[in-house]
Amino acid sequence: MLIVGSHVSPYVRKVLVALAIKGIAHEVDPITPFYGNDEFSRLSPLRRIPVLIDGDLVLNDSTIICEYLDETYPDPPLMPRAPADRAKARWLEEFADSRLGDLCIWRLFFRKVVAPRVFKREPDLEDLKLVTEVELPAALDWIEAQAPADEFLFGHVCTAEIGLACFFRNAAIAGWEMDPARWPKAAAWVARVQAIPEFAATMPMEKAILTSPNAERRDALIAAGARLSEETYGEPEPRASIMLR
Amino acid sequence: MLIVGSHVSPYVRKVLVALAIKGIAHEVDPITPFYGNDEFSRLSPLRRIPVLIDGDLVLNDSTIICEYLDETYPDPPLMPRAPADRAKARWLEEFADSRLGDLCIWRLFFRKVVAPRVFKREPDLEDLKLVTEVELPAALDWIEAQAPADEFLFGHVCTAEIGLACFFRNAAIAGWEMDPARWPKAAAWVARVQAIPEFAATMPMEKAILTSPNAERRDALIAAGARLSEETYGEPEPRASIMLR
Repeated sequence: MLIVGSHVSPYVRKVLVALAIKGIAHEVDPITPFYGNDEFSRLSPLRRIPVLIDGDLVLNDSTIICEYLDETYPDPPLMPRAPADRAKARWLEEFADSRLGDLCIWRLFFRKVVAPRVFKREPDLEDLKLVTEVELPAALDWIEAQAPADEFLFGHVCTAEIGLACFFRNAAIAGWEMDPARWPKAAAWVARVQAIPEFAATMPMEKAILTSPNAERRDALIAAGARLSEETYGEPEPRASIMLR
Repeated sequence: MLIVGSHVSPYVRKVLVALAIKGIAHEVDPITPFYGNDEFSRLSPLRRIPVLIDGDLVLNDSTIICEYLDETYPDPPLMPRAPADRAKARWLEEFADSRLGDLCIWRLFFRKVVAPRVFKREPDLEDLKLVTEVELPAALDWIEAQAPADEFLFGHVCTAEIGLACFFRNAAIAGWEMDPARWPKAAAWVARVQAIPEFAATMPMEKAILTSPNAERRDALIAAGARLSEETYGEPEPRASIMLR
């Protein structure tokens, strides 16, 4: 099984943590968004990462990939069993993928960490202020109301909780962390998810990517324990991408 | 069971068609996006429609609502059974919800039909040209490659196909229809879905909404056969909404 996508993407990280929990052997082709070649466009019509490739099967979208993994390898489970619980888990995942994706990735991580490096573009400070002082706090008020008092929502960690924790990991890399005094249950919940061994194991990969020049990145990832594919769907230069919308 | 949301929303229409196929009795509170009151914000933290309310259960997101309906009322099915087929169906639905949502709803229907009426704002003609001449055709090239030669993808109509057909219904209301000479399989596929009785039954509701002044809309909907709720989460004036992002 091959995952195409960078370890610093929260959507890729969600899938890598799910694969690790399931104990499914896999390799990673660590291309970054915007750096995919034409064959990548064919595999991923919206030029999104991650892509899962398993023989003839090609799947897009982290949520869909994780549902597929949970249906194909049900043990240990990553989704609750009762329909109402499943709907609740899916909504938490969708809230994270859409709302936290907009706030933590596009308007925070992308503009502060990615755009200055890749596109030589400086962040919009007024919008950053709106994100960190108004919109992320409002999202966290909602998350605080969903957070369990201890452990996880459904007796075991679920995909939605992994996804949620992934977005706050990227926010932290971009220099923003939630105030545990203001959102105590949310902060403890996210910290519990990030502390599970399969999640904690992803952090050295991010560090390897963020602290290495492009040319040394593969070696740094391998040194950090990543199993990388020999093939790649990446190319040396970024190109305009639908992901920018 | 109560569905909060307007019959002209493609996401609401998807759920209404699913409920009709399943034969599940329901009422509709026909609020339009941007017109929800504070209680609506509590039920729908991203102020999106549709919302499903079933006793204490409140669900957001048309995809999640339809998965819940299919898990709770499995007959007749709206999803295929094999995990790889389910992933394929989910990806088609996600492609429609995200990409066609952006193209057909926000950049076509919203700007041409909704914004001039609700927000007194005229459409950006250059972007409309980009959507109808470049981006929608590119999306349709991909859809054409997915289209079955006849009938439906998985032996019965599935949620993803209903969703797909919903977006092209809104595009048609906004004056854009795909060229059947250029995309023959896609055009025939969408027409087949729109022709199933449960889908065709939604069209008089749209007409009632689009051709009636606000004050007469409830009566027009009831005359067209809609079963409406007595309560409402709507309010008379639109307000700023997260949906505008």
